[in-house]
Amino acid sequence: MLPRPVFVAASLLAAASRVSALWPLPQSLSEGSSALRLSPGFHITLGSSLAVDAPFDLYDAIGRTQLALFTDNLGRLVVGRGASDVDAFQGAAYLTELQLSLGSGSTVNSVATEAQKPIGERDEAYTLTVPANGSAATITATSTLGLYRGLTTFEQLWYEYQGTVYAINAPVTIEDEPAYPYRGLLLDTSRNYFPVSDILRTLDAMSLVKLNEFHWHVVDSQSFPLEIPGYEELATYGAYGPDMVYSASDVQTIVSYAGARGIDVMVEVDTPGHTAVIADAHPDFVACNQARPWATYANEPPAGQLRFTNATVAAWTAGLFSALARMFPSRLVSTGGDEINVPCYDADAETQRDLNATGLSFNDALAGFTSQTHAALEAAGKTPVVWEEMVLDYNLTLSNETYVLVWISSEDAKEVADKGFRIIQAPSNYFYLDCGAGGWVGDYPAGNSWCEPFKTWQYAYTFDPLANLTADQYPLVAGGQHNLWAEQSGPENLDPIVWPRAAASAEVFWSGAGGNVTAALPRLHDVSFRMRQRGINSISLQPLWCALRPDECDLDW
Amino acid sequence: MLPRPVFVAASLLAAASRVSALWPLPQSLSEGSSALRLSPGFHITLGSSLAVDAPFDLYDAIGRTQLALFTDNLGRLVVGRGASDVDAFQGAAYLTELQLSLGSGSTVNSVATEAQKPIGERDEAYTLTVPANGSAATITATSTLGLYRGLTTFEQLWYEYQGTVYAINAPVTIEDEPAYPYRGLLLDTSRNYFPVSDILRTLDAMSLVKLNEFHWHVVDSQSFPLEIPGYEELATYGAYGPDMVYSASDVQTIVSYAGARGIDVMVEVDTPGHTAVIADAHPDFVACNQARPWATYANEPPAGQLRFTNATVAAWTAGLFSALARMFPSRLVSTGGDEINVPCYDADAETQRDLNATGLSFNDALAGFTSQTHAALEAAGKTPVVWEEMVLDYNLTLSNETYVLVWISSEDAKEVADKGFRIIQAPSNYFYLDCGAGGWVGDYPAGNSWCEPFKTWQYAYTFDPLANLTADQYPLVAGGQHNLWAEQSGPENLDPIVWPRAAASAEVFWSGAGGNVTAALPRLHDVSFRMRQRGINSISLQPLWCALRPDECDLDW
Repeated sequence: MLPRPVFVAASLLAAASRVSALWPLPQSLSEGSSALRLSPGFHITLGSSLAVDAPFDLYDAIGRTQLALFTDNLGRLVVGRGASDVDAFQGAAYLTELQLSLGSGSTVNSVATEAQKPIGERDEAYTLTVPANGSAATITATSTLGLYRGLTTFEQLWYEYQGTVYAINAPVTIEDEPAYPYRGLLLDTSRNYFPVSDILRTLDAMSLVKLNEFHWHVVDSQSFPLEIPGYEELATYGAYGPDMVYSASDVQTIVSYAGARGIDVMVEVDTPGHTAVIADAHPDFVACNQARPWATYANEPPAGQLRFTNATVAAWTAGLFSALARMFPSRLVSTGGDEINVPCYDADAETQRDLNATGLSFNDALAGFTSQTHAALEAAGKTPVVWEEMVLDYNLTLSNETYVLVWISSEDAKEVADKGFRIIQAPSNYFYLDCGAGGWVGDYPAGNSWCEPFKTWQYAYTFDPLANLTADQYPLVAGGQHNLWAEQSGPENLDPIVWPRAAASAEVFWSGAGGNVTAALPRLHDVSFRMRQRGINSISLQPLWCALRPDECDLDW
Repeated sequence: MLPRPVFVAASLLAAASRVSALWPLPQSLSEGSSALRLSPGFHITLGSSLAVDAPFDLYDAIGRTQLALFTDNLGRLVVGRGASDVDAFQGAAYLTELQLSLGSGSTVNSVATEAQKPIGERDEAYTLTVPANGSAATITATSTLGLYRGLTTFEQLWYEYQGTVYAINAPVTIEDEPAYPYRGLLLDTSRNYFPVSDILRTLDAMSLVKLNEFHWHVVDSQSFPLEIPGYEELATYGAYGPDMVYSASDVQTIVSYAGARGIDVMVEVDTPGHTAVIADAHPDFVACNQARPWATYANEPPAGQLRFTNATVAAWTAGLFSALARMFPSRLVSTGGDEINVPCYDADAETQRDLNATGLSFNDALAGFTSQTHAALEAAGKTPVVWEEMVLDYNLTLSNETYVLVWISSEDAKEVADKGFRIIQAPSNYFYLDCGAGGWVGDYPAGNSWCEPFKTWQYAYTFDPLANLTADQYPLVAGGQHNLWAEQSGPENLDPIVWPRAAASAEVFWSGAGGNVTAALPRLHDVSFRMRQRGINSISLQPLWCALRPDECDLDW
């Protein structure tokens, strides 16, 4: 599946009051107005191509769907929460079976294996039919990942009222596939730590809106909570505490939980900046560690960056990425590269000595360091990912296979594309979930978040992934993501700060741009309320009075 | 205790790195630098004046303190979370007893009874001593409420490391009383519903920072979740659902839970505006119910206001307040009075007919209605509370005993004081917790929260309750409060949106104005972390790296 950033869904996106509460909206949907009940004996069956060798995680997904159908207990978001549907569903046909089948000739892999494929090779397409007369519903796809996406859609058709699980829009026919192959969410677990259970719950929520990439900004200057085989000292000395470490086994849990939900885990170890914490274990590796005033040497405290000019450090870092590559099955690993602080290196005698000794310029030394880490990743079959400065601020020799995260501004995507790089859209002016909550730096009463104001779901929803690009550059856009930097976040506010806002980008990158916030709002309420039924603290976008009365809280109603 | 808005604590407020982690900061504090351990056999005893007839809720408070001391398990916010304290506390004396006693001649009332007294009569003063040598600690006061405040302070002295509960600042001597007698928090339970358990948890958090007034904006145009004896139809028809009603018994639970924690419950039924929901049970009572466009007839959807010109409606409303007065022991009841929409009444034929028939002006009819509701409250021994428009926009004949909530802008306090009214400071520009999260009105993509930007704790902390007032007006300021309007809130984000921000006003109104945010930050971290230990999802203000290293994340460090 190559990126197909076309606007096929635009007519659906503009006419949401006619469509059911699916989020993200499918590329093609036809629905009726008949009610259909879910039989208490409802079961999900596997077509012949799967009957023999269905992967374990597909069975697992089927079991979870079966459970969710009878435990979501979501009352429809209308006055009476479904009481007015009784007339319609009484006497309606019962659905007893959903058949999953793979197209002939499809290879049967686990959902995880499909999810972890390279970006351009992920096959998420599926077709879903739900007849109105009670005959079996079907999901067909050419990969188990497509079947999984279909199950997720199927779950969103159902409501519950006084023990009856029912749909209101049979017959349904959906043909669906994502507009963009990369749809992510970044979580920073360094500034504050999140227990594994928080990450698993986040993966559940991501999966509900068909996000497929967990960008794990796992470590940074403040703490190093990742236990990496062969590099255990980093967490031993750099984690906030022994109870705030992701062990190798935790990573395995997270990766397989994600994979089973159609989500790839892209780990990031940001280098050479954002690495002060490495000094706790390797003091010699870090320039200007804890230097003061920190604001001169870093974007946030504490200061400290890897001495990338040092051959030992460069080799060690490359080895670290090789070890990381072995921990994570994803084909993507991010080496970071944002916010390199030059005054830090200017002031570092060792760095200056190295540069003098080799005769390399700062730029060329950085190019060498980056080549070395990227080579380690490429040797392990990975594609490197970097933040935009790596291609906009320096003249390195990165492969054009490299994915570049645009973050400083959405305006920067054009320049990245002009240089021929592939793009992941993560711009702070649309998708930074932490903006607008005031400043956190101390002794700075007038300080505010640097990326004011708060990024509303409405604004994120208007994002155009292809803005300013030429048509021949469109295929460079792999997709994009919301991002949670955790200076002011922790387990206490994870769900409320992320959900349902991050569902906005999930729809932009699945259904395509061009959606209308007014038409989207009732569906977004629906997905938010369904998340709550599953234990995710997704917040209220409006008073319940409004959520139950689509349009009546619109400005001109 | 009359308001004593003096700045006795200013020197303490400016020197927080020398003081312990108490929040709010006491008026007078002397502390040493000796460690002290809490004996496993630690117990709280009652002096002779209490030994015979201590009220049940004081026993209850003692039990909770005893429990919290051994279950808070708060590691001190330093690197190592207390490991560096071991040398100090090994071999330190054990504290085995805390004695509570009332000054001779004090009347022994329950904590709740004291908390529910009129504003000017609440006695919250206490003296706390904790010797360094293990002799008994003492709390003395002239009311059980003072003893309760002392227990709260005592709890904040203790940390835990590997099973040892210890303090680091013995000996401690504290003499304390609040700068302002009213320190509140408003919660709106109409726009979205909060289960009783959320309210109880909020009361726990309030009590931890010595807030003493729960301003319960229980109903509004969107829903009427309060069951009022004799007026049950309002909730029957107006609640979001039968599972979203505060029964009379729930109210009793909330009131006594609050009382036992030194908190009074001030209920508000906002009139005559903000009452569309009353039309569900009494269609004839409400003008312009659900009128469109709502923006012409109300500040938010749905439109609808009580026909205050109608004698039946006025008498019914007065009766409603009489019934409310019987439900709530507080001496304060708010009749609201904000955002009356005049075009609604202009367009309402019944209202115009009433005005023509009586020959009253709009203002005089409103004066009559308000007199009637206030008379009902006064007959029940209550003091009415109103929003500022009632004294600034209309010429009513309100008693100067009335408390006026300043909300539109902190600038308005001066005008309220000039009219001789008593003031509760609740200004949106400092204390509205909902601001800055984007707009919630539909079909309005450019919409933003009307009270942009987000109100940071730092800004709230700089609030001066006496700004622009003359010295003779100072006694008019009863105190103030943070406010959570719940259009975009619910159980999902209650704690994160309120805590620890609302602790900022708690300190302003207990310790007095003039505090310094830089000095306050480490103490605010402490109270936020302690709240988490008690199950309140109070958020991170900084990366943990900063929270463990006071000052090191200050801008100029």
